[in-house]
Amino acid sequence: MSDPAKVVTACILVIGNEILSGRTRDSNIQYLATELGKLGVQVRECRVIPDIEATVVATVNEVRKKFDYVFTTGGIGPTHDDITADCIAKAFGVGISEHPEAVARMTRHYGDPALFTPARRRMARVPHGGILVDNPVSVAPGFQMENVFTFAGIPKVAEAMFQSMKHRLVGGDPVLSRTVRTNLPEGIIAEPLGALQKRYEDIDIGSYPAFRGGKPSVSLVLRGTDDARLVVATSELMATLRGMNGEAEEFVA
Amino acid sequence: MSDPAKVVTACILVIGNEILSGRTRDSNIQYLATELGKLGVQVRECRVIPDIEATVVATVNEVRKKFDYVFTTGGIGPTHDDITADCIAKAFGVGISEHPEAVARMTRHYGDPALFTPARRRMARVPHGGILVDNPVSVAPGFQMENVFTFAGIPKVAEAMFQSMKHRLVGGDPVLSRTVRTNLPEGIIAEPLGALQKRYEDIDIGSYPAFRGGKPSVSLVLRGTDDARLVVATSELMATLRGMNGEAEEFVA
Repeated sequence: MSDPAKVVTACILVIGNEILSGRTRDSNIQYLATELGKLGVQVRECRVIPDIEATVVATVNEVRKKFDYVFTTGGIGPTHDDITADCIAKAFGVGISEHPEAVARMTRHYGDPALFTPARRRMARVPHGGILVDNPVSVAPGFQMENVFTFAGIPKVAEAMFQSMKHRLVGGDPVLSRTVRTNLPEGIIAEPLGALQKRYEDIDIGSYPAFRGGKPSVSLVLRGTDDARLVVATSELMATLRGMNGEAEEFVA
Repeated sequence: MSDPAKVVTACILVIGNEILSGRTRDSNIQYLATELGKLGVQVRECRVIPDIEATVVATVNEVRKKFDYVFTTGGIGPTHDDITADCIAKAFGVGISEHPEAVARMTRHYGDPALFTPARRRMARVPHGGILVDNPVSVAPGFQMENVFTFAGIPKVAEAMFQSMKHRLVGGDPVLSRTVRTNLPEGIIAEPLGALQKRYEDIDIGSYPAFRGGKPSVSLVLRGTDDARLVVATSELMATLRGMNGEAEEFVA
């Protein structure tokens, strides 16, 4: 057996009434989860919470202790409903004020001082002790407070912020995955699949049914940190499916 | 002033490693949030959690006390990673066994007894005291335990299950919304918008920037339970935007 895998965990907090009302379908969770996975950071929980100060403060304080990293999206714009920066300051028990470097960047960006309105200056406010996260899209920065990273909610901006700071993260062993697609229904393969899972405790085997072109199809996803073990388990699974006269097509993620 | 609004709250729990790994982008949150909103049930929190028994049990027990309704999606299929039904039983401190009506429906559906495999029979198991939720798509039912409703994860099935049970929900005052779209940037409208929010404390005004055809555009969403108040606040907002030489186009949701 190889050494136990080094596990680094994360939680994503999506802050925004527009997701809770159904107006907007979140896409930041999928983007961040995928990118973090590549770096060996495993997302273990996501929460969508409203723009309510007490909720944001309590949630940030709960999850920053439970997970190695926390990523928040949403609520750092210039309007009255953008309360995330103040909530993060409160959660850490620190003050908040204009960050000179953020002001400098935004002053350059807006050029005409009349365009750098008081509302826009609010976006230069950073909790004391915070380290800026660059925003290559629209300049107003995100920030890092210890293990908590605060990004904008607009996907284009959140994605650019993540790319600009990801070198700061120290990941664990990357989780590798292999996917086998079959035409056999879950109810038929469940027993051999469960037996396979029991023999490979270090591998997480997930079964995801879907409809593909009207026909039921099942994706079997094997995830783990030891590729040699994944290869062996995957071939065993494919042999089993073929032995049941099923299709077994492999995809490597 | 009208009577204070009757508020009914909900939490959505998305149970599944495939969302946390980024493999799958959830769509059940947006669907359920939108449909619940129509019934006067306000989603106040969503969580995405892994297929880990202790996590599911603890989370269900936390949120069923905090919210009027809880909806879970995912983890009620026939494979080893489908642990939601057992977790709900554990959360409520009850046993779990085959529900006669669920068995009868599935027996009819599969016809040939050889097709009603032990794995599929697992899907007829319901925590004691549970009330079935019909599944018009693939028969194996969801269930209700007090204020907790357990649905399948496949969106087509989750949506059909919701439609089949929604008459059981007692909603509060429906939240109505009006949206005004403008070409003025947030940093310019933030101050009058904040002032408007202060004058209409019973209305929740959200500001959502986006890029539309390459140009920045802001959607201002006014939400509340009193339509007359919404109408007044919306016209005031539109007059303000036009007074600033901006566009102001209204959408009624």
